[in-house]
Amino acid sequence: MSEPHTNNLCLALLQFAVPIGSTSTQILSHVTDMVRTAAADGANIIVTPELFLSPYFPQSLDESNFDLAEPIPGPTSTYLQALADELNVTLHASLFERRAPGLYHNTSVTMTPEQPIQLYRKMHIPHDPHFEEKYYFTPGESFAIHATPHGNIGPLICWDQWFPEAARATALLGADLLVYPTAIAYLDSEPPEEQAAQRDAWITIQRSHAIANNLFVAACNRIGREGKLNFWGSSFIAAPDGTIIAQASETDEQIVIADLDLSMIETQRRAWPYLRDRLPHQYQSLTQQFADNN
Amino acid sequence: MSEPHTNNLCLALLQFAVPIGSTSTQILSHVTDMVRTAAADGANIIVTPELFLSPYFPQSLDESNFDLAEPIPGPTSTYLQALADELNVTLHASLFERRAPGLYHNTSVTMTPEQPIQLYRKMHIPHDPHFEEKYYFTPGESFAIHATPHGNIGPLICWDQWFPEAARATALLGADLLVYPTAIAYLDSEPPEEQAAQRDAWITIQRSHAIANNLFVAACNRIGREGKLNFWGSSFIAAPDGTIIAQASETDEQIVIADLDLSMIETQRRAWPYLRDRLPHQYQSLTQQFADNN
Repeated sequence: MSEPHTNNLCLALLQFAVPIGSTSTQILSHVTDMVRTAAADGANIIVTPELFLSPYFPQSLDESNFDLAEPIPGPTSTYLQALADELNVTLHASLFERRAPGLYHNTSVTMTPEQPIQLYRKMHIPHDPHFEEKYYFTPGESFAIHATPHGNIGPLICWDQWFPEAARATALLGADLLVYPTAIAYLDSEPPEEQAAQRDAWITIQRSHAIANNLFVAACNRIGREGKLNFWGSSFIAAPDGTIIAQASETDEQIVIADLDLSMIETQRRAWPYLRDRLPHQYQSLTQQFADNN
Repeated sequence: MSEPHTNNLCLALLQFAVPIGSTSTQILSHVTDMVRTAAADGANIIVTPELFLSPYFPQSLDESNFDLAEPIPGPTSTYLQALADELNVTLHASLFERRAPGLYHNTSVTMTPEQPIQLYRKMHIPHDPHFEEKYYFTPGESFAIHATPHGNIGPLICWDQWFPEAARATALLGADLLVYPTAIAYLDSEPPEEQAAQRDAWITIQRSHAIANNLFVAACNRIGREGKLNFWGSSFIAAPDGTIIAQASETDEQIVIADLDLSMIETQRRAWPYLRDRLPHQYQSLTQQFADNN
């Protein structure tokens, strides 16, 4: 489906905090500085955490939060497109999208130099204490890949990361790397061993998508405390054999950056030929909620 | 679909070597001793490695190896059924099945006391240097669960473990634990860091099935050298949050045993509600070999 890419891919994940009280102007100014630093360091695809333009508002149900949403294209994506054009880089940003009055999405936007904007709307929407996203976001309608000059981004978002179906469906579209803007946090009420198990599970499930699909996987999380949430950072990039090639700390602002050799994908797929051996005619039950014939 | 089980489940994995030259009579005698030991230790579901009744013959193409296959029910399963009846335990054994002249399967057999035998035929069949299984085994025709007095086994076999689809399809049938009899090995030609990455990927992908489906996962591998293969043992049991609760070494004969609290499955599924949020209407592309519309 996709031709081999001749350009190298240098991926950067921007891990930072969004303290409660920050304005979108302050945040965008800070992110612009980080983008310029990453670009100067050689990055050509640069990723933000999930919904980076505000503190994580789905902690509570508040109708006024819908005012945070903006159309795409809209002010932020237009600004970021100009930045992508200026720096000759691809930006992959997570925004709160106002698609129509009363219709809002949690949306990843890819801006490549001089090309139309590409969208992915988060499909799996969580709803748990302090992550009440089903109140705000309508699920997206399709998996996607976003073509860039440096490779095909497979855009997925946070809660999507727990669903092997999402990773596989995106890989089958021809993704070279799965990219998960994320907002995942510890709750103070959880005992330390449960917190450690959660973070480990979060890394493990995403590494497993790299392994099962033999492609690169990147997760970009925020850090810092916002109300009852303590975002655990740990943004990382995994190679097609599942090994972690770069990772940030749990607490520090950091740019995670790595050169990705996309030829590893086909090398790995020849050695671990899972795509050869998938049995799609046997997977019909995956299109059911449960296989109890009810 | 399945009622809560009142009986506790104590799972034992028999990890052992099958040196080249061993006869099936010698091996079955040794396995019987291990089964008796595991049962005396309280195990009520006991698992063998893959194709345990002989050295790993798919290393080479040899027509005479088809003589190793036997019908099911047949001599070995009848013997093991009597052992299950005597000890009042469930045995889950991996056998080379002769289904008809010229039709052979790599088959897991569950024998519960006084109940009919239950079968699962390996669906994903590998074929790589020294693992030339497509020569010997026709793929099975359906995923399954095997009911036992202690819980529902989700039977899968070795290469199946790399396919999230297989784990999910079996979980959706109501499995409480996925059980993978396995024969996986290092090759001497691989550098040590590649060997370590492979073993780590093997553990990671199976832990990810526990996480994604919130159920128990067990892998039972052989140990020891057979020709060019150096089986890496490491048999383990993972809990529904992905943590490893028991694991064997890479080199020693060992019975891996653990009590499994099946109530953890629903507890975990309420905290990590992936089954609630699956989007089966969006997974149609998983029933294609690739999503390029060709």
